[in-house]
Amino acid sequence: MSQPGQMWGGRFAGSLDPAFAEFQKSLPIDHVLAFADLETNLAWSDALAQAGVFDDEELEKVRGAIDDLAEHWIEHGVPADDEAEDIHSLVERELQARCGDLAKRIHTGRSRNDQVATDLRLFLRERIAGCIEGVHDLCATLVEKAKQHAADPMPGYTHLQRAQPITIGHHALAHAEALSRDRERLIDAFDRMDQCPLGSAALAGTTVAVDRQVLADQLGFENGPTRNSLDATAARDHLCELAFVAAMITTHLSRLAEDYIFFATQEAGFVTFGDAVSTGSSLMPQKRNPDAMELVRGKAGRVQGALMALMSTVKGLPMAYNRDLQTDKETLIPALLETEACLHVAALAVHHATFDVARCAAAADRGYLNATDLADLLVDAGVPFREAHGIVGRAVNRAVELGVELQDLPDDERKALLPQLDCDLREALSVRAVLDRRSAVGGTAPARVQAEVRAWEEQLAEWATGVEEAFDLDDDEDPDDDDDESTS
Amino acid sequence: MSQPGQMWGGRFAGSLDPAFAEFQKSLPIDHVLAFADLETNLAWSDALAQAGVFDDEELEKVRGAIDDLAEHWIEHGVPADDEAEDIHSLVERELQARCGDLAKRIHTGRSRNDQVATDLRLFLRERIAGCIEGVHDLCATLVEKAKQHAADPMPGYTHLQRAQPITIGHHALAHAEALSRDRERLIDAFDRMDQCPLGSAALAGTTVAVDRQVLADQLGFENGPTRNSLDATAARDHLCELAFVAAMITTHLSRLAEDYIFFATQEAGFVTFGDAVSTGSSLMPQKRNPDAMELVRGKAGRVQGALMALMSTVKGLPMAYNRDLQTDKETLIPALLETEACLHVAALAVHHATFDVARCAAAADRGYLNATDLADLLVDAGVPFREAHGIVGRAVNRAVELGVELQDLPDDERKALLPQLDCDLREALSVRAVLDRRSAVGGTAPARVQAEVRAWEEQLAEWATGVEEAFDLDDDEDPDDDDDESTS
Amino acid sequence: MSQPGQMWGGRFAGSLDPAFAEFQKSLPIDHVLAFADLETNLAWSDALAQAGVFDDEELEKVRGAIDDLAEHWIEHGVPADDEAEDIHSLVERELQARCGDLAKRIHTGRSRNDQVATDLRLFLRERIAGCIEGVHDLCATLVEKAKQHAADPMPGYTHLQRAQPITIGHHALAHAEALSRDRERLIDAFDRMDQCPLGSAALAGTTVAVDRQVLADQLGFENGPTRNSLDATAARDHLCELAFVAAMITTHLSRLAEDYIFFATQEAGFVTFGDAVSTGSSLMPQKRNPDAMELVRGKAGRVQGALMALMSTVKGLPMAYNRDLQTDKETLIPALLETEACLHVAALAVHHATFDVARCAAAADRGYLNATDLADLLVDAGVPFREAHGIVGRAVNRAVELGVELQDLPDDERKALLPQLDCDLREALSVRAVLDRRSAVGGTAPARVQAEVRAWEEQLAEWATGVEEAFDLDDDEDPDDDDDESTS
Amino acid sequence: MSQPGQMWGGRFAGSLDPAFAEFQKSLPIDHVLAFADLETNLAWSDALAQAGVFDDEELEKVRGAIDDLAEHWIEHGVPADDEAEDIHSLVERELQARCGDLAKRIHTGRSRNDQVATDLRLFLRERIAGCIEGVHDLCATLVEKAKQHAADPMPGYTHLQRAQPITIGHHALAHAEALSRDRERLIDAFDRMDQCPLGSAALAGTTVAVDRQVLADQLGFENGPTRNSLDATAARDHLCELAFVAAMITTHLSRLAEDYIFFATQEAGFVTFGDAVSTGSSLMPQKRNPDAMELVRGKAGRVQGALMALMSTVKGLPMAYNRDLQTDKETLIPALLETEACLHVAALAVHHATFDVARCAAAADRGYLNATDLADLLVDAGVPFREAHGIVGRAVNRAVELGVELQDLPDDERKALLPQLDCDLREALSVRAVLDRRSAVGGTAPARVQAEVRAWEEQLAEWATGVEEAFDLDDDEDPDDDDDESTS
Repeated sequence: MSQPGQMWGGRFAGSLDPAFAEFQKSLPIDHVLAFADLETNLAWSDALAQAGVFDDEELEKVRGAIDDLAEHWIEHGVPADDEAEDIHSLVERELQARCGDLAKRIHTGRSRNDQVATDLRLFLRERIAGCIEGVHDLCATLVEKAKQHAADPMPGYTHLQRAQPITIGHHALAHAEALSRDRERLIDAFDRMDQCPLGSAALAGTTVAVDRQVLADQLGFENGPTRNSLDATAARDHLCELAFVAAMITTHLSRLAEDYIFFATQEAGFVTFGDAVSTGSSLMPQKRNPDAMELVRGKAGRVQGALMALMSTVKGLPMAYNRDLQTDKETLIPALLETEACLHVAALAVHHATFDVARCAAAADRGYLNATDLADLLVDAGVPFREAHGIVGRAVNRAVELGVELQDLPDDERKALLPQLDCDLREALSVRAVLDRRSAVGGTAPARVQAEVRAWEEQLAEWATGVEEAFDLDDDEDPDDDDDESTS
Repeated sequence: MSQPGQMWGGRFAGSLDPAFAEFQKSLPIDHVLAFADLETNLAWSDALAQAGVFDDEELEKVRGAIDDLAEHWIEHGVPADDEAEDIHSLVERELQARCGDLAKRIHTGRSRNDQVATDLRLFLRERIAGCIEGVHDLCATLVEKAKQHAADPMPGYTHLQRAQPITIGHHALAHAEALSRDRERLIDAFDRMDQCPLGSAALAGTTVAVDRQVLADQLGFENGPTRNSLDATAARDHLCELAFVAAMITTHLSRLAEDYIFFATQEAGFVTFGDAVSTGSSLMPQKRNPDAMELVRGKAGRVQGALMALMSTVKGLPMAYNRDLQTDKETLIPALLETEACLHVAALAVHHATFDVARCAAAADRGYLNATDLADLLVDAGVPFREAHGIVGRAVNRAVELGVELQDLPDDERKALLPQLDCDLREALSVRAVLDRRSAVGGTAPARVQAEVRAWEEQLAEWATGVEEAFDLDDDEDPDDDDDESTS
Repeated sequence: MSQPGQMWGGRFAGSLDPAFAEFQKSLPIDHVLAFADLETNLAWSDALAQAGVFDDEELEKVRGAIDDLAEHWIEHGVPADDEAEDIHSLVERELQARCGDLAKRIHTGRSRNDQVATDLRLFLRERIAGCIEGVHDLCATLVEKAKQHAADPMPGYTHLQRAQPITIGHHALAHAEALSRDRERLIDAFDRMDQCPLGSAALAGTTVAVDRQVLADQLGFENGPTRNSLDATAARDHLCELAFVAAMITTHLSRLAEDYIFFATQEAGFVTFGDAVSTGSSLMPQKRNPDAMELVRGKAGRVQGALMALMSTVKGLPMAYNRDLQTDKETLIPALLETEACLHVAALAVHHATFDVARCAAAADRGYLNATDLADLLVDAGVPFREAHGIVGRAVNRAVELGVELQDLPDDERKALLPQLDCDLREALSVRAVLDRRSAVGGTAPARVQAEVRAWEEQLAEWATGVEEAFDLDDDEDPDDDDDESTS
Repeated sequence: MSQPGQMWGGRFAGSLDPAFAEFQKSLPIDHVLAFADLETNLAWSDALAQAGVFDDEELEKVRGAIDDLAEHWIEHGVPADDEAEDIHSLVERELQARCGDLAKRIHTGRSRNDQVATDLRLFLRERIAGCIEGVHDLCATLVEKAKQHAADPMPGYTHLQRAQPITIGHHALAHAEALSRDRERLIDAFDRMDQCPLGSAALAGTTVAVDRQVLADQLGFENGPTRNSLDATAARDHLCELAFVAAMITTHLSRLAEDYIFFATQEAGFVTFGDAVSTGSSLMPQKRNPDAMELVRGKAGRVQGALMALMSTVKGLPMAYNRDLQTDKETLIPALLETEACLHVAALAVHHATFDVARCAAAADRGYLNATDLADLLVDAGVPFREAHGIVGRAVNRAVELGVELQDLPDDERKALLPQLDCDLREALSVRAVLDRRSAVGGTAPARVQAEVRAWEEQLAEWATGVEEAFDLDDDEDPDDDDDESTS
């Protein structure tokens, strides 16, 4: 017994149990695919016309109905709580109200399996573009920070122990570097899914004589049609890959967040967050909490969970489509939206983080961060590195006892501990000298960081133009396209 | 600058960035805690009165305001899209509208950190009770199925290869057995979280002279107050444990689902799903898909993802509360609701699954499922088991060549292959005989399965009374409690 | 074609592909079950004798062979690289060398499916006992630390921002509290798996007339035999639960580690790790890294991964045993061993961590950690809490500008900002006063912490005796039991 | 106090606790990096010589020592159980034994942090190449299967219900298609990590005037040196990405395994596995289990767990290197080796799987798999698709009642149910006709599948040459390179 908003039912005499009917509905999730679904309906209608299923007049009516529905939804929104079981049923019912039985014929030679696969890829384009923009904006913010502080020293850490001085700019660019790889991952993932499944039907391929290359072109898929109908309807690896990239991005953000949360402690005191991204406590009046960064760090766990959910759901499923796969959207889409939001909020937080340059510099000057350089001086004086390492270790121990830095060891102590050296340690071990020594590619020397900032600025400019081309994002603002856009 | 619906701000001059304000709001999630929050407000107000912070009249006003708000929300619902940043701010604002400055005083000696920890535990009681009921109902459905088919044979599988005959009832009880352990896990998890964090304040304990044992009693926590304020506000292991139990339940359901999906294939043909839980295809008119079980199997992945999300979020967080933990609710609550729904839908699917008893019996009789019993007969005749195993393997090979079952081997073949045996193989290797031989505890012999069904029926009756006591679930229907209940 | 060390093969003419033979071997992993397997062989042999399969003399020979093999392996170790495909095959072959064809008969009415299920439960007893001891030792170390520093102040944090003063002892007990719940989880998990699967055979139950209750008793299973043979051989939820508890423990340890790593930074300077648990850098001579705690934190990720691996492997498997389940041991066993090691190393690290009491106290005194108490004083003077919160926020802002603490505000400022107060702020806002105010159950007041230390000491003493009984751990040291022990 | 095989210690007076010393050792894992470490030592020595740290004679001695050690280990193996704490310490000690104090000087301007980052990337090249070869071999096996059965029908499934006929070849190519995307993912992941971290030192860059581009070239990194020393030593996203790709591959294999396990059931009977990849039961003599595919499916869970372990370990780590990261190798390396083994075993299993072509064809002909085509015929006769769908649903119901297929409906029934049709249904609904209709790109029509097979054969040939170039794999067989190879 066919029910309202249901695309099947000829074989069924009884109704769905109401609890199961509710359980299996996907409209609360897949209504976001509404405009993508209109787009695939339009393209498929054109294809059916080319194959002779629709004549010109019929096609015109169908296209008119689709345009009309698109305009209606642009104005009134898509009803997520409609009684239809999914977006495809809803679209069909609404089109039927606009062009009658013609709407029933659009489904010729097509299945919800290839339709949803196509819709989702179209929808994900925008999410990927959003993430790419988010990465761009955060990298731009980090590069800005790096430019401002390219030469300002701060302690560099390993094991969260002060290790060697670095510049604040070098630290900012480290995080940008990681994100730039994630940007490539987004593009690679996009490229891999940029193939059109429409025409694969339920599992075995369509019986209508459509030209799938034309379909792919019309829908903007650069890599043509998919090559195997079973794979096209059953595959979800592109979703897993996107979930992985989202998890990688948020995991990278969690590291950035961890750094800034530490920098903002009273203990470090390197950074103060502005009011725009700080919150207080309902109990403790003095609190100014780095909530933005904490939430970003916490979301990384959620997105990792989404990755795991998808992988586990897909594991061990037989060919081809299984209903388990309906859960893909409720897992992936929020994960991508959260990733986009995290990128934006992280950029805000970095932007509103003010470094206390003097305190950073002072910290870089305390705690024997120049010990490696002292060892290097010994090496220059002919001591094998491993021995130099031991000598300096003992010098540090003595300096700790005396409560001084290495360059401030009393002369007699110094002569006893470091007889090989005869230079001006204060100069040779100054933060500036220590930084400048690290001028090889990738090093923290201010001149090197400044060069990297310039390279990044060029990179960012290239990114800005590249992404517009890749995703035709400028088209969205093209007024001439307005009519088409309502359905795309 | 304090903003509407914000419980802090004395130190802040600027406003939150709107994007961050949106990002950090928890009301869209934590509005489900509304009634729990009223309950904790009520209990805390009582405690403040006992400590002398409120006099009798003030307390009465506060209680009145809380009651009034509860009634309002019961009638109109809780506004999930209010501008307040979280449920605690919303409650405070609404109480202030009802009892003025007294509402501002309820927060004395309390923090949102201990408040949300308490609210969430109160809320989770209902979710746990819901899962326990769901396990009960599914077990009852399986036991029903087992009773009906206690003696009906079907093939038992290992490696998805026919192994030995079992009864359909034995199979149903296997799944019930696993679920009964999950029920214990739910109870253990509940018991472990049945402690009251209220009075821990932000991290270091409250300064108000409240009696936390009384507080715990009033809020129905059986194991008294928590013992350490840092732990009480920072701990989320009880949420992780619940997520694990939910993941274990749905993983068990995924195995049940896998079995039934296989049983419902045309290849097996053991089970037909009723229309109440089947769906069709938009393209293929003949299809009758086991979607209920597929969706249940798919959801297992999602709940596993929620477990991973929580574990990863909690990992490496310093003491005490961090804002990362705000994400706990958006991860856990849907996972528990999905688990409850999955239990219900799985019970529906089992209930609406009709076994084709004749086809099951026929399948149990084909494919050499009695080979082990033939080996046992050889052992009885004095052949060591390992040798018997080899002899029967060769007999099976010959039977495969001849296209017959073992009991149907021609006499000459049988004498050559099994000279040690002189009994009536048709009788000794009949499905009935094979089943009856497995009568030890846990075995598939019909008499044993029938005894287990009776034991299960008693068990289910005990469960039904036990859970009412544990969660005071009957109270909910007690009309005399209505007034209190509106706030509890 | 049967191959060496292979327990099947009558139906097979060809050999295994060598690569697959290697791939499917489990001996490199399951050789750790050797002694458990001897124990189940012994118990099963007794059961077979009771059922009349062995006569007294035969049983004696079999027992002798088992004893002999046990002694041999105690002396020479179990050969993990033997050509046998699994431990069961290896044991059978070795017993055959000692008692001939009798060894072939032990497998009567039994399968590797119920055997490995039983072996693994026996083996896991020791791992669980090891984890329980590890939790005990770490809690004892934390309680020791708490006793030593019950009254020593340090800053308490939320959001890694200084929040309110706590005592070092209170912090130590917070972590002990969390671990005590994990201890309960271990015991619950143990209790749930304390049932004997032996006698379930491959899937349908044994055909031999064994008394499974006697078997369970002999093997020390407190909760008798399992109730359903399919479930007994196919279930792995007890392994998932153990993996969860291990992940929860290590996740708790990761939080402890995070705290101590922060405490050991130059920025905090609260803790110094002794040489016994610190490492240096190959490059930077001054480094003293908290590697012990970092490794513990890192391992938490690994154990979480093991949990996920098990859950994903089990998901969607049909009844009953599938070969996928062979991978359970290679996932779970290392995770449990790592958990045990992490508990031990964390205890070492806590033990070798020296708190700089003066520096902790000074930090607790700087940064407005008494702001909440100032608000409370205002509340005592009649100001509603929310207003007091705002007033103090503004006072903190002014104090920050002046570079003083709240109690050190100049008189005129204080009168302007806090006209309601007339007490001695230096006394009322001293760290000691602030701590002492938090004397409710769970609070950080020194007297309360000292009481908790005493309660913990009693608890630890009870644990010590309890676990010995639960796991018969004392037996291991009982010299009279030596003969039995070789096979148990 | 410096200990044997330890590269630091000048500041330390006490020894490591033995338990911690054991816990923190990485040699049992990282000894696999031995030859990579020699390679980086060689390249770094050359760089030091270019920077003037070594003169020609010294360099020659160092290179000699490295060559000598390489030859020694090629002959005798790398001692995984040495007392050295890691591979770098072991190499230094061994070199010192061969060239004295010169060995101590190789560590000038370098840290274990950049060294292990470089070693691991070198090592992973071979693992990635191994996986790429594994994908190639499995795809080649699937293409072979597809060629053999390009036109042989079998049932195609959705929801594990018979849906429409497909060819066996089409099914094989669906899995190959998915794997071909994983191959691209491997190459993308490789390309992203093909940058040289050496010269980043501990965190801030080297102080020695080395040319990092020359270093990168010498070590074969195509994308030059890494650009930021903090990122270079702290980043592990390339490992996460590899773990993801491994998890994606094994998840794809788990779907292939699921299909074949189902095909090999007695119920389906489509496939028989050869003895080379089948195993039996220790209890049930008739069993022939698809263990190869079950183990492959089970391993997918393990590799997913490894992905999760890495992601969780990396989350929230501060810059730059933390010791948590030591666990990366013990997680990733086995996961990659398992993936390689799974690819190989899956190829074996597919190769040794024999399809029962007659049974597959018969199954494709039973169960109304041509119902969609009947609906299409109605559409051709002018019935809107949705109505046709309903009409055919009722026809299927009637056919089920009568126990016939659609084409075998009695004439009167057919006329009543399908008055619109006048063609020869037996011809129009034959499996052959149904297959042939699906001839669009990606469809299952035999001619289309044959064309795809040819395209795949060309693809495989290209892959074979491409990978040799990418990884210089042919070099390994070049006898002239032997001397160099000992250190590469």
